[in-house]
Amino acid sequence: MAQQKKKVEDITSMDVDFAQWYTDVVKKAELADYSSVKGCIVYEPYGYAIWENIQREMDARFKKLGVQNVAMPMLIPESLLQKEKDHIEGFAPECAVVTQGGGEELGEKLYIRPTSEVLFCEHYQKKIQSYRDLPKLYNQWCSVVRWEKTTRPFLRGMEFLWQEGHTMHETPEEAEAFTLQMLRVYEEVYRDVLAIPPVVGKKTEKEKFAGAVATYTLEPMMHNGVALQGGTTHYFGDGFSQAFDIHFTGRDNQLHAPHQTSWGMSTRLIGAVIMVHGDDNGLVLPPRVAPVQVVIVPIAQHKPGVLEKAAELRDRLSQDFRVKLDDSDNSPGWKFAQYEMQGVPLRIELGPKDIEQGQCVMVRRDTGEKTLVPLDSLEQRVSEGLDVIHDSMLYKAQENFDAKTFVAHNHQEFLDIAAHKPGFIKAMWCGDSACEDQLKEETGGVKSRCIPFEEEHISDVCACCGKPAKHMVYWGRQY
Amino acid sequence: MAQQKKKVEDITSMDVDFAQWYTDVVKKAELADYSSVKGCIVYEPYGYAIWENIQREMDARFKKLGVQNVAMPMLIPESLLQKEKDHIEGFAPECAVVTQGGGEELGEKLYIRPTSEVLFCEHYQKKIQSYRDLPKLYNQWCSVVRWEKTTRPFLRGMEFLWQEGHTMHETPEEAEAFTLQMLRVYEEVYRDVLAIPPVVGKKTEKEKFAGAVATYTLEPMMHNGVALQGGTTHYFGDGFSQAFDIHFTGRDNQLHAPHQTSWGMSTRLIGAVIMVHGDDNGLVLPPRVAPVQVVIVPIAQHKPGVLEKAAELRDRLSQDFRVKLDDSDNSPGWKFAQYEMQGVPLRIELGPKDIEQGQCVMVRRDTGEKTLVPLDSLEQRVSEGLDVIHDSMLYKAQENFDAKTFVAHNHQEFLDIAAHKPGFIKAMWCGDSACEDQLKEETGGVKSRCIPFEEEHISDVCACCGKPAKHMVYWGRQY
Repeated sequence: MAQQKKKVEDITSMDVDFAQWYTDVVKKAELADYSSVKGCIVYEPYGYAIWENIQREMDARFKKLGVQNVAMPMLIPESLLQKEKDHIEGFAPECAVVTQGGGEELGEKLYIRPTSEVLFCEHYQKKIQSYRDLPKLYNQWCSVVRWEKTTRPFLRGMEFLWQEGHTMHETPEEAEAFTLQMLRVYEEVYRDVLAIPPVVGKKTEKEKFAGAVATYTLEPMMHNGVALQGGTTHYFGDGFSQAFDIHFTGRDNQLHAPHQTSWGMSTRLIGAVIMVHGDDNGLVLPPRVAPVQVVIVPIAQHKPGVLEKAAELRDRLSQDFRVKLDDSDNSPGWKFAQYEMQGVPLRIELGPKDIEQGQCVMVRRDTGEKTLVPLDSLEQRVSEGLDVIHDSMLYKAQENFDAKTFVAHNHQEFLDIAAHKPGFIKAMWCGDSACEDQLKEETGGVKSRCIPFEEEHISDVCACCGKPAKHMVYWGRQY
Repeated sequence: MAQQKKKVEDITSMDVDFAQWYTDVVKKAELADYSSVKGCIVYEPYGYAIWENIQREMDARFKKLGVQNVAMPMLIPESLLQKEKDHIEGFAPECAVVTQGGGEELGEKLYIRPTSEVLFCEHYQKKIQSYRDLPKLYNQWCSVVRWEKTTRPFLRGMEFLWQEGHTMHETPEEAEAFTLQMLRVYEEVYRDVLAIPPVVGKKTEKEKFAGAVATYTLEPMMHNGVALQGGTTHYFGDGFSQAFDIHFTGRDNQLHAPHQTSWGMSTRLIGAVIMVHGDDNGLVLPPRVAPVQVVIVPIAQHKPGVLEKAAELRDRLSQDFRVKLDDSDNSPGWKFAQYEMQGVPLRIELGPKDIEQGQCVMVRRDTGEKTLVPLDSLEQRVSEGLDVIHDSMLYKAQENFDAKTFVAHNHQEFLDIAAHKPGFIKAMWCGDSACEDQLKEETGGVKSRCIPFEEEHISDVCACCGKPAKHMVYWGRQY
């Protein structure tokens, strides 16, 4: 027990210092390590395995929609990046720039991709000639580089892993519909895979992506009430198509510019998982992405038959689940703390007495609840247990979201809530970005998160300027 | 038939111009496209899907050995790259260098990784303290950048996709054994997945990797007799460990430096698949990596019931295979040529008469052989068919290898073969790199490929200098 206590002591309490708690968890659970390039992290095996599981879930959903994976170059010539004016203005200042190659100064600078719209457009320009070539539904899994001043593992990094989808469509309607369809796929990943309920809606003009006509966003609330922009889908209209001279012969035999979308989610999702579900004992991982779903800890493992039986259970469960048997010579107490810290959803304890009685002890990570489970129904109980954990993690996250979402009817209420209640604010807005600027300044950082698809009517006027309101907006601080 | 002919005419005959044939196939099968950065290609969906299948096969084998995936940063500070002298000498001249970031000149140059030994070592330095921390068996899937003067899609590129494994071990014996074990895994991938028989052996001192103690290699022979260095595993001893101050407390309570390996295979494998198996009609894909294993082409598809039956077969076969039904309004002849060009292993033709008789026509891509197959045993026949195709592709590649491998007993024979017979040369060697230089110069490019594990005794003396021979070596030109 001494060792178990020590393990937990290694992690700062989240109520004492949430930022330090986060850093402690990332480090102790060996999710990521710092590297010698500021803002670039090493994704360690346990952290990367979570990402692989997220990738598998997302990739299968993409492929079901007919999306095809590709790989674009990581370097973008300056002239190519400059083709779309808003885009280069948005991204060039935060790029890493290659000026030397093969021992020589380059004639033209090469930017490491901060995102790949222009590369996809260059390719599509060659590939799209007829409406028969549409839609093009491409995605790539890669890393991108953005020069960030403040970085934090998974949340904001100079280099991060993500997927970026880029599609081209025959009509604006089809492109807009796809933008929203992908938003729903992302929402499904949040809810059904990560057990996180995000706010979903449209970004304001001020907050939309450089070069986009419309940006949609998914923003989960972290345990401390702060938002994370955790996924966006963009509708571009034909702006890039015009800039890149992409045209196709339509069904009417006339030339048209295709309509474009892009959409991305990144390893920020891992940050969201940590900060939505974690507790003072460390990670609490959603079962569907946990690298180890069930850990088996033998009790009195030197006693005859214990390790054999534990290995038998591991082999049985490994047919359907990701299972680890820890037969190391660490104490059971140390192991309990270790796998709690790593957020393993289910722990199975198995000792000589259990074996005698044909049962084992099953312990939930999320609630600590213990149950005796007959060994002959173990597969079923584990399967049900993982589903129950998923559902109750989602429910708990929703409860936190609800408890930390406040309604501001007017300017003073808005400022009061922003000053004293960490969380999201629902308030009306006139549609003017000047009000967004003012509220951000007055509150020291509260920004519009999105206009949700189902707006409530809170008042008739903007919570900032008092002019007639156009929309209900979710507001909040962000990582 | 007009359209079918045209399709084939699009591809230059391999006997006329092998290089042009290769480029034509890459382009017509839409495996890859050029980008505006010289030497960087776009991996198009069909080419990338082959890579995904190769990845899945390799990754499963890695994980079985306990290898864990991670992701390292793509940027390496100059000071870090300089820590191992041989390594920086080998790689620095061919690096892309970032000198600006976030709009400012950087204090220290950042190299885009040409390979990641130094990044892994930096991380291992922090993580390895005790023998209990060993072995570390890490791998990453990523892209690397090397400034190449001449590039060709998949074979040699400025940026290419690969996996790089980096492991640390307690003893030299364990590290050397792992180096060889991974070589065998790679060989299994070649033979059992890609249907390619590579030469496997040890590189000479001259040809080994910058900083390695020993380099092992797998080199398949292309259809035209040219070699491709298509995979290497390296044993490093403790050179990097010393340079990076990586030490662990051993079982004897003393400090030791761990022993290191690295190993990589890249999208060159796709180049090998094209050039080993392809023919004048285009790609011939090994069934285990073919993105589409079976294409169903309905005949007289406007006749009632044909498309319905074809869809039923697709649904049945999709349970176990990667299947495509082409119900587009292109002619069957056009479709035949199209999927031949794309190298789809099996084509199923289904018309009204076939349906009446409860059968379909199954056509092998590799031989063109047609068989009538009863629909009620279709799954079994497809499964067997794919295995037979794999085996006979491997056999055919081995035949080509044997037919183009020549024995040189002496210097004159070596030069004669090199001048007139494209292929590999087996010849004795004294162990002196001066002879490698001389043979390369005299032949205009024939280099040592490797010292195979099972050497034959061809003569007592070196085929270059006539001094006593130490080894039998495979020689050949390379891509």
